[in-house]
Amino acid sequence: MNTSTPNEPNAENPHTEAAFQWPVRVYWEDTDGGGVVYHARYLHFFERARTEWLRSLGFDQSVLKAEHNIVFAISQMDIKFLRAAHLDDELQVSVRLVKRGRASMQMEQEIRRGDEPIARAVVYAGCLKADVFKPTRIPSFMLAELR
Amino acid sequence: MNTSTPNEPNAENPHTEAAFQWPVRVYWEDTDGGGVVYHARYLHFFERARTEWLRSLGFDQSVLKAEHNIVFAISQMDIKFLRAAHLDDELQVSVRLVKRGRASMQMEQEIRRGDEPIARAVVYAGCLKADVFKPTRIPSFMLAELR
Amino acid sequence: MNTSTPNEPNAENPHTEAAFQWPVRVYWEDTDGGGVVYHARYLHFFERARTEWLRSLGFDQSVLKAEHNIVFAISQMDIKFLRAAHLDDELQVSVRLVKRGRASMQMEQEIRRGDEPIARAVVYAGCLKADVFKPTRIPSFMLAELR
Amino acid sequence: MNTSTPNEPNAENPHTEAAFQWPVRVYWEDTDGGGVVYHARYLHFFERARTEWLRSLGFDQSVLKAEHNIVFAISQMDIKFLRAAHLDDELQVSVRLVKRGRASMQMEQEIRRGDEPIARAVVYAGCLKADVFKPTRIPSFMLAELR
Repeated sequence: MNTSTPNEPNAENPHTEAAFQWPVRVYWEDTDGGGVVYHARYLHFFERARTEWLRSLGFDQSVLKAEHNIVFAISQMDIKFLRAAHLDDELQVSVRLVKRGRASMQMEQEIRRGDEPIARAVVYAGCLKADVFKPTRIPSFMLAELR
Repeated sequence: MNTSTPNEPNAENPHTEAAFQWPVRVYWEDTDGGGVVYHARYLHFFERARTEWLRSLGFDQSVLKAEHNIVFAISQMDIKFLRAAHLDDELQVSVRLVKRGRASMQMEQEIRRGDEPIARAVVYAGCLKADVFKPTRIPSFMLAELR
Repeated sequence: MNTSTPNEPNAENPHTEAAFQWPVRVYWEDTDGGGVVYHARYLHFFERARTEWLRSLGFDQSVLKAEHNIVFAISQMDIKFLRAAHLDDELQVSVRLVKRGRASMQMEQEIRRGDEPIARAVVYAGCLKADVFKPTRIPSFMLAELR
Repeated sequence: MNTSTPNEPNAENPHTEAAFQWPVRVYWEDTDGGGVVYHARYLHFFERARTEWLRSLGFDQSVLKAEHNIVFAISQMDIKFLRAAHLDDELQVSVRLVKRGRASMQMEQEIRRGDEPIARAVVYAGCLKADVFKPTRIPSFMLAELR
């Protein structure tokens, strides 16, 4: 008997439900001479997904910077590289907001290739005034959407 | 009474003594539209320093791969981004080996601009057979040097 | 009297008809401290479009390399950077094959943002044996499709 | 009888005399899954050398931007990729100013590995006001040095 409920957290794979998903294709530019994706490129993939997640909530970062003097800067990333991805792989990158303060956010992200996890990250981002790069509160018009 | 000795670990700056140091200059390619170094680029800087540290011990990774079928892959990185670096900055990147197993290494790395820490990372690398990307022991000729 | 016909080549915009098109979004990773896309990144965009054009013809380069020992290497690029692209821009990248030899191809590519041309390139690619990086003939199963 | 004189231009290698030289080491980040340097990375190497050439003349681009509202943007590059460079290669990148207008420059650049040319480029750069990205004259304090 399967007694799991649809909303029960899944310890092995916490990213399949509710998380925002963004597809990424691996190109030559992403690979290195080892024949696999260069490790720093996964941070690009994570960032594209965060950007598209914000866009899905109505926030373009070019507008946040130009009109609201706001940028988000990464203050910490704890990353596990679990498997190698390769040229032509189709990956899925997830974003899940796990904490939200007045001036910062904590997210969990995962990169998967089908059922296989490729990389996982806990990402801490702080809200900064774009012109002086000093911490500031997340604008109130964003707070309501960051849930 | 302050009885600290010159070799006592320095909690604020554990990387100035004994660690391998490598200089990195910030170019346009390293910056992003926020006017600072793009966060993933620090991983490139960390990696250049690890590469030069291995070279300083006598190990070129192109030779390790071609003649010994060995590559090192990053399995985990815990990174703190402390300050923003900018175009033309001269940075120092350190590498300190903190643990060494039969098939893996743990390193502490720091990027500094003069006295200011820019980023710190704990880096876990595993030794792999280059052709199949499977874990293997660090070659014995390397073990003696990895101290 | 303007007697131009719909299929007449358009000097101002030779890439709108018949050329393969691929969309590219501009992310933070693509921008530099000048606030615009870093010039070398356009070569990545051109390459993604060439990769997807080949895929649209049935050719995955990971398969070409693994099963047919074939890679394509760029031998020459003549690039005009016409306008700056910015964070969040949605670009269209075109590929048009203009010449095809037994071991090489010449393509014209363009990056547009709506009606505005951003960059244009003439790209020369040679077919190489992947293991020795020496010129070789384009496989016959590809030749029929490269028109 | 060899009647060549030491200062005679060398058609095969026009970049060894008088040109500014800058060393570049190839790291994992520069390579791709083909086992060689990714073609767009050569543009990074060319740019580092131009940056260091300007610095050698007394001009830091971060200062030009912050204090003089000046950036240089590449308007055209004609590049020949002649040989593949590999991980750990030590390259020399040259810069030679061949034309200088009131608002633009033309340079010839070459990347060499010892005696072997790896890539050559003719590079056209325009002087722009950094805040509006519009053409402007090269500041007079620079003109005297750009010879």
